[in-house]
Amino acid sequence: MKLYGYFRSSAAFRVRIALNLKGLDYETALINLTTAEHLTDDYRRVNPQGRVPALVHNDTVLTQSLAIMEFLEETHPEPAFLPESATARARVRALANIIACDIHPLNNLAVLNYLSGPLSASDEQKTTWYRHWVSEGFNAVEPLLAQDSATGDFSHGDAPGLADICLVPQVFNAQRFDCDISPYPTIDRIFNNCMALDAFDAAQPSKQPEAADIA
Amino acid sequence: MKLYGYFRSSAAFRVRIALNLKGLDYETALINLTTAEHLTDDYRRVNPQGRVPALVHNDTVLTQSLAIMEFLEETHPEPAFLPESATARARVRALANIIACDIHPLNNLAVLNYLSGPLSASDEQKTTWYRHWVSEGFNAVEPLLAQDSATGDFSHGDAPGLADICLVPQVFNAQRFDCDISPYPTIDRIFNNCMALDAFDAAQPSKQPEAADIA
Repeated sequence: MKLYGYFRSSAAFRVRIALNLKGLDYETALINLTTAEHLTDDYRRVNPQGRVPALVHNDTVLTQSLAIMEFLEETHPEPAFLPESATARARVRALANIIACDIHPLNNLAVLNYLSGPLSASDEQKTTWYRHWVSEGFNAVEPLLAQDSATGDFSHGDAPGLADICLVPQVFNAQRFDCDISPYPTIDRIFNNCMALDAFDAAQPSKQPEAADIA
Repeated sequence: MKLYGYFRSSAAFRVRIALNLKGLDYETALINLTTAEHLTDDYRRVNPQGRVPALVHNDTVLTQSLAIMEFLEETHPEPAFLPESATARARVRALANIIACDIHPLNNLAVLNYLSGPLSASDEQKTTWYRHWVSEGFNAVEPLLAQDSATGDFSHGDAPGLADICLVPQVFNAQRFDCDISPYPTIDRIFNNCMALDAFDAAQPSKQPEAADIA
Protein backbone atom coordinates (compact mmCIF):
# COMPACT_ATOMS: atom_id res chain seq x y z
CA MET A 1 0.00 0.00 0.00
CA LYS A 2 1.12 3.51 -0.74
CA LEU A 3 -0.10 6.47 1.27
CA TYR A 4 -0.05 9.89 -0.33
CA GLY A 5 0.02 12.36 2.52
CA TYR A 6 1.62 15.28 4.26
CA PHE A 7 3.08 15.32 7.71
CA ARG A 8 0.81 18.09 9.01
CA SER A 9 -2.41 16.91 7.35
CA SER A 10 -4.51 15.56 10.17
CA ALA A 11 -6.56 13.44 7.76
CA ALA A 12 -3.32 11.77 6.60
CA PHE A 13 -2.21 11.49 10.24
CA ARG A 14 -5.42 9.53 10.95
CA VAL A 15 -4.66 7.04 8.20
CA ARG A 16 -1.06 6.63 9.37
CA ILE A 17 -2.33 5.75 12.85
CA ALA A 18 -4.92 3.38 11.39
CA LEU A 19 -2.36 1.55 9.24
CA ASN A 20 0.00 1.29 12.20
CA LEU A 21 -2.72 -0.04 14.51
CA LYS A 22 -3.68 -2.68 11.96
CA GLY A 23 -0.01 -3.60 11.62
CA LEU A 24 0.00 -2.95 7.88
CA ASP A 25 3.14 -2.06 5.96
CA TYR A 26 2.93 0.93 3.66
CA GLU A 27 5.17 3.27 1.78
CA THR A 28 4.58 6.99 1.85
CA ALA A 29 4.57 9.61 -0.88
CA LEU A 30 4.93 13.22 0.18
CA ILE A 31 2.45 15.70 -1.26
CA ASN A 32 3.62 19.12 -0.11
CA LEU A 33 0.51 21.15 0.64
CA THR A 34 2.48 24.35 1.22
CA THR A 35 3.72 24.31 -2.38
CA ALA A 36 0.25 23.27 -3.65
CA GLU A 37 1.55 19.93 -4.88
CA HIS A 38 -1.91 18.52 -4.13
CA LEU A 39 -3.32 20.67 -6.92
CA THR A 40 -0.88 19.55 -9.61
CA ASP A 41 -2.02 17.46 -12.59
CA ASP A 42 0.30 14.69 -11.43
CA TYR A 43 -1.42 14.36 -8.09
CA ARG A 44 -4.89 14.88 -9.51
CA ARG A 45 -4.26 11.79 -11.61
CA VAL A 46 -4.04 9.93 -8.29
CA ASN A 47 -6.85 11.78 -6.51
CA PRO A 48 -8.95 14.02 -8.77
CA GLN A 49 -10.19 15.88 -5.70
CA GLY A 50 -6.66 17.10 -5.04
CA ARG A 51 -6.74 16.31 -1.34
CA VAL A 52 -4.69 14.10 0.93
CA PRO A 53 -4.71 11.37 2.00
CA ALA A 54 -5.05 8.88 -0.82
CA LEU A 55 -4.23 5.25 -0.19
CA VAL A 56 -3.37 3.10 -3.19
CA HIS A 57 -4.12 -0.55 -2.63
CA ASN A 58 -3.96 -3.12 -5.45
CA ASP A 59 -4.37 -0.37 -8.09
CA THR A 60 -7.44 0.98 -6.33
CA VAL A 61 -7.19 4.54 -5.08
CA LEU A 62 -9.00 5.07 -1.81
CA THR A 63 -9.74 8.60 -0.66
CA GLN A 64 -11.37 10.37 2.29
CA SER A 65 -9.85 9.32 5.59
CA LEU A 66 -13.08 8.07 7.18
CA ALA A 67 -13.84 5.90 4.17
CA ILE A 68 -10.28 4.59 4.19
CA MET A 69 -10.51 3.67 7.86
CA GLU A 70 -13.82 1.85 7.36
CA PHE A 71 -12.17 0.00 4.47
CA LEU A 72 -9.25 -1.03 6.66
CA GLU A 73 -11.67 -2.15 9.35
CA GLU A 74 -13.61 -4.28 6.87
CA THR A 75 -10.57 -5.81 5.19
CA HIS A 76 -8.43 -6.24 8.33
CA PRO A 77 -10.88 -6.69 11.21
CA GLU A 78 -8.25 -7.21 13.91
CA PRO A 79 -7.52 -5.31 16.03
CA ALA A 80 -10.97 -3.76 15.74
CA PHE A 81 -11.47 0.01 15.45
CA LEU A 82 -15.17 -0.38 16.21
CA PRO A 83 -16.92 -2.26 19.03
CA GLU A 84 -19.39 -5.07 18.35
CA SER A 85 -22.84 -3.73 19.13
CA ALA A 86 -24.55 -1.41 16.69
CA THR A 87 -25.30 1.22 19.33
CA ALA A 88 -21.70 1.19 20.55
CA ARG A 89 -20.46 1.47 16.97
CA ALA A 90 -22.80 4.43 16.49
CA ARG A 91 -21.34 6.09 19.58
CA VAL A 92 -17.77 5.69 18.33
CA ARG A 93 -18.65 6.89 14.85
CA ALA A 94 -20.51 9.90 16.26
CA LEU A 95 -17.46 10.90 18.30
CA ALA A 96 -15.27 10.49 15.23
CA ASN A 97 -17.69 12.52 13.14
CA ILE A 98 -17.86 15.44 15.57
CA ILE A 99 -14.15 15.82 14.92
CA ALA A 100 -14.10 14.86 11.25
CA CYS A 101 -17.24 16.79 10.25
CA ASP A 102 -17.69 19.58 12.79
CA ILE A 103 -14.13 20.67 13.64
CA HIS A 104 -11.56 19.64 11.09
CA PRO A 105 -13.29 20.80 7.86
CA LEU A 106 -13.51 24.33 9.22
CA ASN A 107 -9.84 24.52 10.08
CA ASN A 108 -8.05 22.99 7.15
CA LEU A 109 -5.58 24.86 4.97
CA ALA A 110 -8.03 25.61 2.14
CA VAL A 111 -10.43 27.30 4.55
CA LEU A 112 -7.74 29.30 6.33
CA ASN A 113 -6.50 30.46 2.93
CA TYR A 114 -10.02 31.54 1.98
CA LEU A 115 -10.33 33.51 5.21
CA SER A 116 -7.10 35.42 4.62
CA GLY A 117 -7.78 35.73 0.87
CA PRO A 118 -11.31 36.68 -0.21
CA LEU A 119 -12.45 37.55 3.32
CA SER A 120 -9.30 39.53 4.21
CA ALA A 121 -9.24 38.07 7.71
CA SER A 122 -6.27 39.04 9.87
CA ASP A 123 -4.02 36.44 11.45
CA GLU A 124 -5.72 37.17 14.76
CA GLN A 125 -9.16 36.61 13.25
CA LYS A 126 -7.98 33.33 11.75
CA THR A 127 -6.61 32.14 15.07
CA THR A 128 -9.85 33.11 16.82
CA TRP A 129 -11.82 31.26 14.14
CA TYR A 130 -9.61 28.20 14.55
CA ARG A 131 -9.94 28.13 18.33
CA HIS A 132 -13.69 28.74 18.14
CA TRP A 133 -14.37 25.57 16.17
CA VAL A 134 -11.98 23.51 18.28
CA SER A 135 -13.71 24.63 21.46
CA GLU A 136 -17.21 24.13 19.99
CA GLY A 137 -16.27 20.58 19.03
CA PHE A 138 -14.30 19.70 22.16
CA ASN A 139 -17.10 21.17 24.30
CA ALA A 140 -19.30 18.48 22.74
CA VAL A 141 -16.77 15.64 22.88
CA GLU A 142 -15.59 16.14 26.49
CA PRO A 143 -18.95 15.46 28.24
CA LEU A 144 -19.76 12.64 25.82
CA LEU A 145 -16.54 11.01 27.01
CA ALA A 146 -16.55 12.06 30.65
CA GLN A 147 -20.19 11.22 31.38
CA ASP A 148 -20.40 7.83 29.70
CA SER A 149 -19.29 4.68 31.49
CA ALA A 150 -18.37 3.20 28.09
CA THR A 151 -15.32 5.46 28.09
CA GLY A 152 -12.25 3.72 29.43
CA ASP A 153 -8.56 4.25 28.88
CA PHE A 154 -9.64 5.25 25.38
CA SER A 155 -12.77 6.85 23.93
CA HIS A 156 -14.59 3.54 23.99
CA GLY A 157 -13.29 0.91 26.36
CA ASP A 158 -9.66 0.08 26.91
CA ALA A 159 -8.45 -0.32 23.35
CA PRO A 160 -7.89 2.46 20.81
CA GLY A 161 -10.42 2.86 18.02
CA LEU A 162 -11.91 5.10 15.39
CA ALA A 163 -12.74 7.96 17.76
CA ASP A 164 -9.22 8.02 19.19
CA ILE A 165 -7.71 7.97 15.71
CA CYS A 166 -9.64 11.14 14.90
CA LEU A 167 -9.12 12.74 18.31
CA VAL A 168 -5.34 12.60 18.47
CA PRO A 169 -4.57 14.56 15.26
CA GLN A 170 -7.18 17.12 16.31
CA VAL A 171 -5.44 17.61 19.67
CA PHE A 172 -2.14 18.07 17.83
CA ASN A 173 -3.74 20.76 15.68
CA ALA A 174 -5.25 22.41 18.74
CA GLN A 175 -1.84 22.50 20.41
CA ARG A 176 -0.30 23.98 17.28
CA PHE A 177 -2.78 26.86 17.48
CA ASP A 178 -2.29 27.21 21.26
CA CYS A 179 -5.86 26.24 22.06
CA ASP A 180 -6.51 25.89 25.77
CA ILE A 181 -6.91 22.16 26.46
CA SER A 182 -7.39 22.53 30.22
CA PRO A 183 -11.23 22.46 30.01
CA TYR A 184 -10.97 18.99 28.45
CA PRO A 185 -9.32 16.68 30.99
CA THR A 186 -10.85 13.51 29.55
CA ILE A 187 -9.72 14.36 26.03
CA ASP A 188 -6.27 15.11 27.42
CA ARG A 189 -6.14 11.84 29.36
CA ILE A 190 -7.14 9.78 26.34
CA PHE A 191 -4.73 11.71 24.14
CA ASN A 192 -1.87 10.83 26.48
CA ASN A 193 -2.91 7.18 26.61
CA CYS A 194 -2.89 7.10 22.81
CA MET A 195 0.46 8.79 22.49
CA ALA A 196 2.00 6.18 24.77
CA LEU A 197 1.34 3.66 21.98
CA ASP A 198 3.86 3.23 19.17
CA ALA A 199 1.11 3.22 16.53
CA PHE A 200 0.14 6.79 17.44
CA ASP A 201 3.60 8.03 18.30
CA ALA A 202 5.19 6.89 15.04
CA ALA A 203 2.40 8.57 13.07
CA GLN A 204 2.85 12.02 14.55
CA PRO A 205 3.86 14.85 12.23
CA SER A 206 7.34 15.46 13.66
CA LYS A 207 8.30 11.84 13.06
CA GLN A 208 7.53 11.87 9.35
CA PRO A 209 10.57 12.00 7.05
CA GLU A 210 9.60 15.33 5.50
CA ALA A 211 9.15 17.12 8.82
CA ALA A 212 12.77 18.16 9.22
CA ASP A 213 13.05 19.49 5.66
CA ILE A 214 9.82 21.47 5.59
CA ALA A 215 9.24 22.69 9.13
CA MET B 1 -38.06 5.91 16.74
CA LYS B 2 -38.18 9.64 17.16
CA LEU B 3 -36.24 11.99 14.93
CA TYR B 4 -35.33 15.41 16.26
CA GLY B 5 -34.76 17.59 13.24
CA TYR B 6 -35.55 20.68 11.24
CA PHE B 7 -36.97 20.83 7.76
CA ARG B 8 -34.05 22.78 6.28
CA SER B 9 -31.26 20.91 8.06
CA SER B 10 -29.62 18.84 5.38
CA ALA B 11 -28.20 16.44 7.97
CA ALA B 12 -31.75 15.79 9.23
CA PHE B 13 -32.92 15.53 5.61
CA ARG B 14 -30.37 12.74 5.09
CA VAL B 15 -31.75 10.77 8.02
CA ARG B 16 -35.35 11.26 6.85
CA ILE B 17 -34.40 9.78 3.47
CA ALA B 18 -32.52 6.93 5.14
CA LEU B 19 -35.46 6.03 7.39
CA ASN B 20 -37.85 6.19 4.45
CA LEU B 21 -35.61 4.00 2.27
CA LYS B 22 -35.37 1.41 5.03
CA GLY B 23 -39.13 1.55 5.40
CA LEU B 24 -38.94 2.46 9.08
CA ASP B 25 -41.69 4.32 10.90
CA TYR B 26 -40.66 7.32 12.96
CA GLU B 27 -42.18 10.31 14.61
CA THR B 28 -40.60 13.72 14.26
CA ALA B 29 -39.86 16.45 16.78
CA LEU B 30 -39.25 19.93 15.43
CA ILE B 31 -36.17 21.75 16.70
CA ASN B 32 -36.39 25.24 15.27
CA LEU B 33 -32.85 26.31 14.40
CA THR B 34 -33.89 29.86 13.55
CA THR B 35 -35.07 30.44 17.13
CA ALA B 36 -32.00 28.61 18.50
CA GLU B 37 -34.12 25.85 19.98
CA HIS B 38 -31.18 23.49 19.38
CA LEU B 39 -29.22 25.41 22.02
CA THR B 40 -31.85 25.20 24.78
CA ASP B 41 -31.28 23.12 27.91
CA ASP B 42 -34.28 20.99 26.94
CA TYR B 43 -32.74 19.94 23.65
CA ARG B 44 -29.24 19.62 25.08
CA ARG B 45 -30.66 16.99 27.40
CA VAL B 46 -31.40 15.01 24.23
CA ASN B 47 -28.22 15.89 22.35
CA PRO B 48 -25.56 17.65 24.45
CA GLN B 49 -23.90 18.86 21.24
CA GLY B 50 -26.99 20.92 20.45
CA ARG B 51 -27.14 19.85 16.83
CA VAL B 52 -29.75 18.11 14.72
CA PRO B 53 -30.47 15.40 13.85
CA ALA B 54 -30.78 13.13 16.88
CA LEU B 55 -32.55 9.82 16.54
CA VAL B 56 -33.92 8.23 19.68
CA HIS B 57 -34.21 4.47 19.42
CA ASN B 58 -35.02 2.29 22.46
CA ASP B 59 -33.86 5.03 24.86
CA THR B 60 -30.55 5.34 23.03
CA VAL B 61 -29.84 8.74 21.49
CA LEU B 62 -27.99 8.49 18.21
CA THR B 63 -26.34 11.59 16.79
CA GLN B 64 -24.34 12.61 13.72
CA SER B 65 -26.12 11.77 10.49
CA LEU B 66 -23.35 9.58 9.04
CA ALA B 67 -23.17 7.52 12.23
CA ILE B 68 -26.98 7.21 12.28
CA MET B 69 -27.03 5.98 8.69
CA GLU B 70 -24.33 3.39 9.36
CA PHE B 71 -26.38 2.28 12.38
CA LEU B 72 -29.50 1.90 10.25
CA GLU B 73 -27.50 -0.05 7.68
CA GLU B 74 -26.18 -2.41 10.34
CA THR B 75 -29.51 -2.93 12.09
CA HIS B 76 -31.72 -3.01 8.98
CA PRO B 77 -29.51 -4.33 6.17
CA GLU B 78 -32.22 -4.32 3.49
CA PRO B 79 -32.44 -2.46 1.22
CA ALA B 80 -28.68 -1.89 1.44
CA PHE B 81 -27.16 1.60 1.42
CA LEU B 82 -23.72 0.19 0.73
CA PRO B 83 -22.57 -2.32 -1.90
CA GLU B 84 -20.96 -5.63 -0.97
CA SER B 85 -17.28 -5.34 -1.81
CA ALA B 86 -14.98 -3.38 0.46
CA THR B 87 -13.57 -1.27 -2.38
CA ALA B 88 -17.06 -0.41 -3.63
CA ARG B 89 -18.14 0.47 -0.10
CA ALA B 90 -15.08 2.71 0.18
CA ARG B 91 -16.08 4.44 -3.06
CA VAL B 92 -19.60 5.13 -1.82
CA ARG B 93 -18.40 6.32 1.58
CA ALA B 94 -15.80 8.59 -0.06
CA LEU B 95 -18.50 10.21 -2.22
CA ALA B 96 -20.69 10.65 0.86
CA ASN B 97 -17.77 12.12 2.80
CA ILE B 98 -16.86 14.67 0.15
CA ILE B 99 -20.32 16.10 0.73
CA ALA B 100 -20.58 15.49 4.46
CA CYS B 101 -17.03 16.57 5.34
CA ASP B 102 -15.87 18.92 2.58
CA ILE B 103 -19.01 20.85 1.62
CA HIS B 104 -21.74 20.76 4.21
CA PRO B 105 -19.73 21.67 7.36
CA LEU B 106 -18.58 24.89 5.72
CA ASN B 107 -22.06 26.00 4.80
CA ASN B 108 -24.16 25.24 7.83
CA LEU B 109 -26.02 27.86 9.83
CA ALA B 110 -23.44 28.16 12.62
CA VAL B 111 -20.69 28.93 10.11
CA LEU B 112 -22.76 31.43 8.14
CA ASN B 113 -23.60 33.16 11.43
CA TYR B 114 -19.91 33.34 12.33
CA LEU B 115 -19.12 34.87 8.95
CA SER B 116 -21.69 37.62 9.35
CA GLY B 117 -20.92 38.04 13.07
CA PRO B 118 -17.25 38.08 14.11
CA LEU B 119 -15.97 38.31 10.53
CA SER B 120 -18.48 40.99 9.47
CA ALA B 121 -18.95 39.35 6.09
CA SER B 122 -21.58 40.90 3.83
CA ASP B 123 -24.48 38.89 2.45
CA GLU B 124 -22.69 38.87 -0.89
CA GLN B 125 -19.50 37.53 0.68
CA LYS B 126 -21.50 34.82 2.44
CA THR B 127 -23.19 33.78 -0.80
CA THR B 128 -19.83 33.70 -2.58
CA TRP B 129 -18.39 31.60 0.25
CA TYR B 130 -21.35 29.22 0.05
CA ARG B 131 -21.10 28.75 -3.70
CA HIS B 132 -17.33 28.36 -3.52
CA TRP B 133 -17.49 25.27 -1.29
CA VAL B 134 -20.37 23.79 -3.26
CA SER B 135 -18.45 24.15 -6.50
CA GLU B 136 -15.21 22.84 -4.96
CA GLY B 137 -17.05 19.76 -3.74
CA PHE B 138 -19.21 19.19 -6.79
CA ASN B 139 -16.14 19.67 -9.02
CA ALA B 140 -14.74 16.63 -7.22
CA VAL B 141 -17.93 14.58 -7.17
CA GLU B 142 -18.98 15.09 -10.81
CA PRO B 143 -15.95 13.39 -12.47
CA LEU B 144 -15.89 10.65 -9.83
CA LEU B 145 -19.45 9.86 -10.90
CA ALA B 146 -19.20 10.58 -14.64
CA GLN B 147 -15.93 8.74 -15.24
CA ASP B 148 -16.63 5.56 -13.32
CA SER B 149 -18.56 2.70 -14.83
CA ALA B 150 -19.80 1.79 -11.35
CA THR B 151 -22.13 4.78 -11.56
CA GLY B 152 -25.58 3.82 -12.79
CA ASP B 153 -28.98 5.38 -12.31
CA PHE B 154 -27.63 6.33 -8.91
CA SER B 155 -24.16 7.14 -7.55
CA HIS B 156 -23.30 3.47 -7.33
CA GLY B 157 -25.30 1.10 -9.48
CA ASP B 158 -29.01 1.24 -10.01
CA ALA B 159 -30.25 1.48 -6.44
CA PRO B 160 -30.01 4.49 -4.14
CA GLY B 161 -27.44 4.43 -1.37
CA LEU B 162 -25.38 6.39 1.09
CA ALA B 163 -23.83 8.72 -1.49
CA ASP B 164 -27.22 9.60 -2.95
CA ILE B 165 -28.65 10.24 0.50
CA CYS B 166 -25.92 12.83 1.08
CA LEU B 167 -26.03 14.22 -2.45
CA VAL B 168 -29.72 15.11 -2.64
CA PRO B 169 -29.88 17.45 0.38
CA GLN B 170 -26.70 19.12 -0.84
CA VAL B 171 -28.28 19.78 -4.23
CA PHE B 172 -31.32 21.26 -2.47
CA ASN B 173 -29.02 23.57 -0.53
CA ALA B 174 -27.16 24.50 -3.69
CA GLN B 175 -30.43 25.39 -5.39
CA ARG B 176 -31.49 27.47 -2.42
CA PHE B 177 -28.33 29.55 -2.82
CA ASP B 178 -28.75 29.72 -6.62
CA CYS B 179 -25.58 27.77 -7.30
CA ASP B 180 -25.09 26.96 -10.98
CA ILE B 181 -25.73 23.22 -11.35
CA SER B 182 -25.21 23.14 -15.13
CA PRO B 183 -21.52 22.05 -14.87
CA TYR B 184 -22.69 18.92 -13.05
CA PRO B 185 -24.92 16.94 -15.40
CA THR B 186 -24.28 13.61 -13.70
CA ILE B 187 -25.11 15.00 -10.27
CA ASP B 188 -28.24 16.54 -11.76
CA ARG B 189 -29.27 13.28 -13.42
CA ILE B 190 -28.83 11.28 -10.23
CA PHE B 191 -30.61 13.96 -8.22
CA ASN B 192 -33.63 13.70 -10.52
CA ASN B 193 -33.60 9.90 -10.34
CA CYS B 194 -33.60 10.14 -6.55
CA MET B 195 -36.37 12.70 -6.40
CA ALA B 196 -38.58 10.42 -8.47
CA LEU B 197 -38.58 8.04 -5.49
CA ASP B 198 -41.10 8.54 -2.69
CA ALA B 199 -38.43 7.99 -0.02
CA PHE B 200 -36.54 11.09 -1.21
CA ASP B 201 -39.56 13.15 -2.20
CA ALA B 202 -41.35 12.73 1.12
CA ALA B 203 -38.19 13.76 2.98
CA GLN B 204 -37.72 17.07 1.22
CA PRO B 205 -37.90 20.24 3.30
CA SER B 206 -41.09 21.65 1.78
CA LYS B 207 -42.99 18.48 2.65
CA GLN B 208 -42.20 18.61 6.36
CA PRO B 209 -45.06 19.73 8.62
CA GLU B 210 -43.22 22.80 9.91
CA ALA B 211 -42.34 24.11 6.45
CA ALA B 212 -45.53 26.07 5.94
CA ASP B 213 -45.41 27.70 9.37
CA ILE B 214 -41.78 28.73 9.32
CA ALA B 215 -40.94 29.49 5.71
